[in-house]
Amino acid sequence: MKTSKEYKESLKKMRPNIYKFGELIKDVTVHPATKRTVNGHAQIFDAAQKDVYKDILTTKSNLTGKQVVRYLSILSSAEDMINNVKMKRLMFNLTGTCTGGRCAGFNALNAMWAATFDMDKDLGTDYHKRLKAWLKDAQERDITIAGALTDPKGDRSKSPSQQEDPDMNLHIVKEKEDGIIVRGAKVMICGIAAANEIFIMPGTGYKEEDKDYAVSFVIPRDIEGLTIVEARHPSDLRELENDFDIPVEIGGITQAYLLFEDVFIPKERVFMNGEFKYSLKAVMNFIAPYRAAIGGCVAGQGDLMIGAAALIARANGLSEKVFREKITQMIINNETTFGMGIAASVLGRKHSSGVWIPNQLISNVNKVHVGTLPYETKRITQDIAGGIGETGCLPSCKDINNSEYGDLLKKYLSANCTGEDRAKISRFIEWLTIGAGVPGCMHGGGSPDGAKLMINAKSDIDHFIELAKRLINLKEDV
Amino acid sequence: MKTSKEYKESLKKMRPNIYKFGELIKDVTVHPATKRTVNGHAQIFDAAQKDVYKDILTTKSNLTGKQVVRYLSILSSAEDMINNVKMKRLMFNLTGTCTGGRCAGFNALNAMWAATFDMDKDLGTDYHKRLKAWLKDAQERDITIAGALTDPKGDRSKSPSQQEDPDMNLHIVKEKEDGIIVRGAKVMICGIAAANEIFIMPGTGYKEEDKDYAVSFVIPRDIEGLTIVEARHPSDLRELENDFDIPVEIGGITQAYLLFEDVFIPKERVFMNGEFKYSLKAVMNFIAPYRAAIGGCVAGQGDLMIGAAALIARANGLSEKVFREKITQMIINNETTFGMGIAASVLGRKHSSGVWIPNQLISNVNKVHVGTLPYETKRITQDIAGGIGETGCLPSCKDINNSEYGDLLKKYLSANCTGEDRAKISRFIEWLTIGAGVPGCMHGGGSPDGAKLMINAKSDIDHFIELAKRLINLKEDV
Amino acid sequence: MKTSKEYKESLKKMRPNIYKFGELIKDVTVHPATKRTVNGHAQIFDAAQKDVYKDILTTKSNLTGKQVVRYLSILSSAEDMINNVKMKRLMFNLTGTCTGGRCAGFNALNAMWAATFDMDKDLGTDYHKRLKAWLKDAQERDITIAGALTDPKGDRSKSPSQQEDPDMNLHIVKEKEDGIIVRGAKVMICGIAAANEIFIMPGTGYKEEDKDYAVSFVIPRDIEGLTIVEARHPSDLRELENDFDIPVEIGGITQAYLLFEDVFIPKERVFMNGEFKYSLKAVMNFIAPYRAAIGGCVAGQGDLMIGAAALIARANGLSEKVFREKITQMIINNETTFGMGIAASVLGRKHSSGVWIPNQLISNVNKVHVGTLPYETKRITQDIAGGIGETGCLPSCKDINNSEYGDLLKKYLSANCTGEDRAKISRFIEWLTIGAGVPGCMHGGGSPDGAKLMINAKSDIDHFIELAKRLINLKEDV
Amino acid sequence: MKTSKEYKESLKKMRPNIYKFGELIKDVTVHPATKRTVNGHAQIFDAAQKDVYKDILTTKSNLTGKQVVRYLSILSSAEDMINNVKMKRLMFNLTGTCTGGRCAGFNALNAMWAATFDMDKDLGTDYHKRLKAWLKDAQERDITIAGALTDPKGDRSKSPSQQEDPDMNLHIVKEKEDGIIVRGAKVMICGIAAANEIFIMPGTGYKEEDKDYAVSFVIPRDIEGLTIVEARHPSDLRELENDFDIPVEIGGITQAYLLFEDVFIPKERVFMNGEFKYSLKAVMNFIAPYRAAIGGCVAGQGDLMIGAAALIARANGLSEKVFREKITQMIINNETTFGMGIAASVLGRKHSSGVWIPNQLISNVNKVHVGTLPYETKRITQDIAGGIGETGCLPSCKDINNSEYGDLLKKYLSANCTGEDRAKISRFIEWLTIGAGVPGCMHGGGSPDGAKLMINAKSDIDHFIELAKRLINLKEDV
Repeated sequence: MKTSKEYKESLKKMRPNIYKFGELIKDVTVHPATKRTVNGHAQIFDAAQKDVYKDILTTKSNLTGKQVVRYLSILSSAEDMINNVKMKRLMFNLTGTCTGGRCAGFNALNAMWAATFDMDKDLGTDYHKRLKAWLKDAQERDITIAGALTDPKGDRSKSPSQQEDPDMNLHIVKEKEDGIIVRGAKVMICGIAAANEIFIMPGTGYKEEDKDYAVSFVIPRDIEGLTIVEARHPSDLRELENDFDIPVEIGGITQAYLLFEDVFIPKERVFMNGEFKYSLKAVMNFIAPYRAAIGGCVAGQGDLMIGAAALIARANGLSEKVFREKITQMIINNETTFGMGIAASVLGRKHSSGVWIPNQLISNVNKVHVGTLPYETKRITQDIAGGIGETGCLPSCKDINNSEYGDLLKKYLSANCTGEDRAKISRFIEWLTIGAGVPGCMHGGGSPDGAKLMINAKSDIDHFIELAKRLINLKEDV
Repeated sequence: MKTSKEYKESLKKMRPNIYKFGELIKDVTVHPATKRTVNGHAQIFDAAQKDVYKDILTTKSNLTGKQVVRYLSILSSAEDMINNVKMKRLMFNLTGTCTGGRCAGFNALNAMWAATFDMDKDLGTDYHKRLKAWLKDAQERDITIAGALTDPKGDRSKSPSQQEDPDMNLHIVKEKEDGIIVRGAKVMICGIAAANEIFIMPGTGYKEEDKDYAVSFVIPRDIEGLTIVEARHPSDLRELENDFDIPVEIGGITQAYLLFEDVFIPKERVFMNGEFKYSLKAVMNFIAPYRAAIGGCVAGQGDLMIGAAALIARANGLSEKVFREKITQMIINNETTFGMGIAASVLGRKHSSGVWIPNQLISNVNKVHVGTLPYETKRITQDIAGGIGETGCLPSCKDINNSEYGDLLKKYLSANCTGEDRAKISRFIEWLTIGAGVPGCMHGGGSPDGAKLMINAKSDIDHFIELAKRLINLKEDV
Repeated sequence: MKTSKEYKESLKKMRPNIYKFGELIKDVTVHPATKRTVNGHAQIFDAAQKDVYKDILTTKSNLTGKQVVRYLSILSSAEDMINNVKMKRLMFNLTGTCTGGRCAGFNALNAMWAATFDMDKDLGTDYHKRLKAWLKDAQERDITIAGALTDPKGDRSKSPSQQEDPDMNLHIVKEKEDGIIVRGAKVMICGIAAANEIFIMPGTGYKEEDKDYAVSFVIPRDIEGLTIVEARHPSDLRELENDFDIPVEIGGITQAYLLFEDVFIPKERVFMNGEFKYSLKAVMNFIAPYRAAIGGCVAGQGDLMIGAAALIARANGLSEKVFREKITQMIINNETTFGMGIAASVLGRKHSSGVWIPNQLISNVNKVHVGTLPYETKRITQDIAGGIGETGCLPSCKDINNSEYGDLLKKYLSANCTGEDRAKISRFIEWLTIGAGVPGCMHGGGSPDGAKLMINAKSDIDHFIELAKRLINLKEDV
Repeated sequence: MKTSKEYKESLKKMRPNIYKFGELIKDVTVHPATKRTVNGHAQIFDAAQKDVYKDILTTKSNLTGKQVVRYLSILSSAEDMINNVKMKRLMFNLTGTCTGGRCAGFNALNAMWAATFDMDKDLGTDYHKRLKAWLKDAQERDITIAGALTDPKGDRSKSPSQQEDPDMNLHIVKEKEDGIIVRGAKVMICGIAAANEIFIMPGTGYKEEDKDYAVSFVIPRDIEGLTIVEARHPSDLRELENDFDIPVEIGGITQAYLLFEDVFIPKERVFMNGEFKYSLKAVMNFIAPYRAAIGGCVAGQGDLMIGAAALIARANGLSEKVFREKITQMIINNETTFGMGIAASVLGRKHSSGVWIPNQLISNVNKVHVGTLPYETKRITQDIAGGIGETGCLPSCKDINNSEYGDLLKKYLSANCTGEDRAKISRFIEWLTIGAGVPGCMHGGGSPDGAKLMINAKSDIDHFIELAKRLINLKEDV
């Protein structure tokens, strides 16, 4: 397994094809717009070596029997899935935010593990064999893999083939002997800057007329024909300043737009090529573990909000005991999304390919919690912080260090600690609740409304009606 | 294992010592105040024989290797505990409400399994041996066992020995060669009328001056010196009428006050006798599985609320689709308490006695949800039901069957089904949400405030602070 | 104005036509099923004479200039409407629950005051003149008037004339020279037992084919051809027992089913007779003040829940300070529904008939709060009460007074006060939260879903869109 | 009354003493960090001239009888206060965010109007006369006045005089014949950049030992010895870029730190000078109207969130009808804070000085709602917006306009409208919910916890207990 240094080296070697603010980022490991997310991902490599984290971050490869990072493994049991939820919480604890350059790719390869198995069995294709071969190689190289599902979609009231512009969803434009050519885009993709490769999957289920959109493959991030533009996020210009107004150096989030201009994908990296009937299944396989594990993500960030809230309370000269009821509510919120992730894990089932699929009903219930509870946790954090933390209402680092009036600011910012430290904690609360550290937990892995559709699909109202009728001995068919 | 008929026979044989409304109940299996809860418990015996429920309701005895009802087993693994949560949901599905005459006893014997093991190991007592012997016998007799912890307590600002009247908490008044004599009361005890025996435990942790209150034992329900008075519950007088104004015949809840007037307990049935240091531990052992599993209970009743709400919607001539968003919220509430129970189960640990103790933090978070979410589910049920279901706003059975105007009532109550069936469904909603079927989920197994104390005790704020400080590289000790 | 004694005399004189439990109630002022609501209404007569309440409970008649009870007045200003909201809160404070035998009638006469004014102006009818004459007489007689809108409705997917049985909504079956004959029913009508007369109005807006259903009139409660059956409510059989298991003697709620079997209504008491176009307007006029004022009702009951919660806390030996955060939330809930009622009042407008119509948007927002916040207040009350209050989990009065074991129960129920008083307070909490005192605030005056339809109808989304477009200078028509 | 042009001229003439990012802002009307808030305030001058807004934005001076902007008037009646609430909502509608450079000053002058009246009456001072003279002049000059209460406070567990550094709260350091000299700071002060003058008040009530902190006065913003540093807010660096990544040009928020280095205040502008007993009263006078009116503020911003949510739904090709339930909830939230503001207004009382003081209980309940409901409204806005709106997850303007790949971005951002407009709407949602437009509604005008203290202080629990005892005829004094 790689060291964090080797990981960064691997990124440095890649062709620059990522832009932000209209400019090409030459080295993602040092550019201020991307270095924090790279640092966050690098922490995984360091932590995987530590005894205390090893059980969570690594596992035995089902292909080779060697110890590999969990992000490159196949989830084969409830225990694996539970460790996945714990891993997400841990990584948010260590980096403060999302390490999407490993997480969605991990999900995608597991989802396609099952889908390719089914296709090969039903259709006699060799997608599963290809995936196996690639994965074995990926484990050996210990690479980071982002995952990409979301298409631009265009007019949401029309299917891909009905769109005026056929490119509004990523699609196959040409099939060749040795591979396929694809065009379109994937948007809002997390962690691209920290990824060596990108795993592409359909964004939804497709019908026959949309079969060109049923496509899955994996590519190096710097493949020819792919242009990447990083999206903005709150207060992202501060990241260019490199002072404590962005208080976190060892973690950061990026979300990118991937522009595919007739990109050639060699056959051995293609895992779905028009088999539209398997697209919905693949997406379902993706959803269950994602929506279970994201409960660990937001719990992990919630842990930091508790820490930050307790810190600012002390910095203000108050005991966190004053806020006991509020902190208890934060804990309840964290443990609820975490616990529901665990429950979805354990109530899952084994797919015939060997992949463990968490319980869909509980996973999707968790997605609804993930789209609401962290908002309450953030609100409480701001509530405890006082006005200084709510919108980060204090002067800039530049002002605090100004030679004329900076000392006055430091004096007036001090309370039960130095003014600078109180400023830093306040900035951290801003970063966590309304700044650059806020992950997209509401829509990441699909929206709460999509989750509610799944909840209904997975619930049998008639069963509940029968239970009620039996209990009151109601014979009439109402 | 007994049949339901044999179970009822076993109850019939007991000495009548239960009162309600000032009168002695001669036969709990036929008296209208108690027969419904007996019927509910009887369902367990029938269901345990059915293939579809066997895995949930029975398990192998760790004492004899024979198949026994789960309620008489030792919880030895996460899987056992998960099945416990599922069993609770199932029993609420089948009976509509609480079968407390097996559930709390089951919890108590598991809690004392661990506590007696510790005492024997530390103090050289033989409590664990006694418990084992009794349990083996109990399994052979396939008896139902209620559990009793709650003391009257008197003035809550004083400890047991400080109370003006020493009887305000159950205590040992005399030690004899062959046993002990106890006096006092246990109150609000569920399922007594359906129980063959009662397992007594301390209600809280005690200090040395209160050591006479650290007492645990098991007794036949009809032991000499014990007088039992059943508490009222909402609309309980209707139970005496035996028509569909109480629409459920095969389930019901009772909660009793147990009055101990110098009751003699033979030695071999005593499992704690003054060892005050072990009282808190015993209570903690009780709390964790109870507060995990109660999530299954309220989910099971919530399932019926969904069924009832969908039924009344149809009866009113509306599709339940109109109420989709509301029903989704009910599902979310149910799956949350159920899922958190599962999570607490799986994140538990094995005690050296072999008992599996669920995760305290998650169990107690679940208790808070159990004290809030079912209230929302009830509110939504009433919302969907319309005015007729909110407070059961329709004439009595007697009126509906009145020879003069009953036909008019039937006519005006009819909608998309007969008036009688619409009335019955409405009464069921009343029963579930504001009537005789409402279990005490807020305070059963301890109050939400008690759970919050545990949540705080089990959370390490300093750990969260350290995570935050590390992330923003804060050196100062704030 | 009448004394409470004279009021009761007026009820005694009426023809018995009210049934419950299959039996005719001969005297509503002494029968245990109805006497409590009569006592509650009687309190209004007493309170109206007291200086401290006079400003709220009485006002000057716009017909005669004489001081009359507010319940028989025309709401002519924001101030009148504000006093209406305050009156509702006061009456719940004094009686513990609903005095529906004056409140809905008051609303109905005001709604029809406007509707009859419009009809007379537009159509040359003389309904307004009739209403005026009747009201003047009603003020002189100082009568109590219930109001009745809700029809049985039958299959909700069909309009009245489409129902298989035309009687599923109250309708005109014959027009005669001197009046009309009506048939059908009105259901779930509050306070009938305490009313001298009943004001009938359409339950919704009607189209031309349903014009026979557009009918409004006022009748003595004991009119020939009208049979009344009282609905059940939680724990209503206890009311027949007359001990402290129903702890409130001076207030109570009843809801009745009115069965009209070809009832003749003399012309001068008819205020709408087929003018279907005015039915919706009439209902809207009813809704606005009702949904504003009901915020006072639930706040008034919420005040008692705070009182009861503080009492039981003390009775248990705890300070209500322990529960400060919870009590604060109860206050917030109460003041929110009360405040929103006040806001709806003041933001209203004057109808050309002189009636003040509260703001529909705010009134309907308040109805949503009234269908949710009191449920939280009840939950908190039970939370503070402990297990004894949650479902009233203590033995019956009969048991507490039993000669054999009653003293033991009294002993064990005592805490920081006598056992009897603690029992009484616990019963009061049961009565307020899950017993006979719970009013139908969710659906009374229409359901939350109906209110949401009104909220949407009264909100102009395009206006909000225009505000947004202007602010960001967006020119495209999206 | 001034035109917006004259208003801007008045700002241009002032001495530059405002800094941000370590640099002096030479002209607040054109500097990108301050011009948007100036534009927002300028809109008031334009709107006040328009017929449609005149009744809300202007009123008759009680000093001169001339029409003046409402912001410079004395609130003399419930109607005035209601118009204040409406004015706040209107200004948020027009500017998108806070116009704090008029609002807090308006509150402060009204609070001190009452306090100075009391002091003059009790102590024979001439503060009220001074205030009157200044206000008359201010009305003639039609100036904008910010208000400043919040001190840095230092260690919150100590009073001002106990602090190690006496400057942690603003205080009088010297009294002179013709005025006073003050030192210290006021922090997080809204709208300073748009203000001509600043009204200073105590931040809390003081005891005798802290009497030097009981000080109130009004100063030109550019007074000698005052240094102002603007605080950061989310995404504030984007404001320097001047493209549509900050989509609002005609509104903006600033919050400043005011550093007083021995500033001389002439006598005639001093309204409190050590009269510590009046400091708490003054603060209470400030709190009531502020916490009532802020309900209008957040409702006004909520209106824009509804507009923005409906716009993005359409832009995405979806009808806002899909989101009807969510939009209804947004409306409910808006009308609740607005309605509670109206209710607090109308239930107020007239102070002997002529100032109308809104109801403290309802005002403070509203503050709690203001600290919670807008968070839900924001969450729903992000929910409806989809991933693109949640954290503004789309490339920067610079990227969208990039010559190489900008066209691709525009293509993929387009849906049911052009890509640019969809981007702009998304940025607006980011601005409103997690960007530069978010006002500090949680702590502005004091924290929710402070409001809860007031709610308790203004509620008489014993009164509620007496109501409960009377109803159940409980004689014992529990």
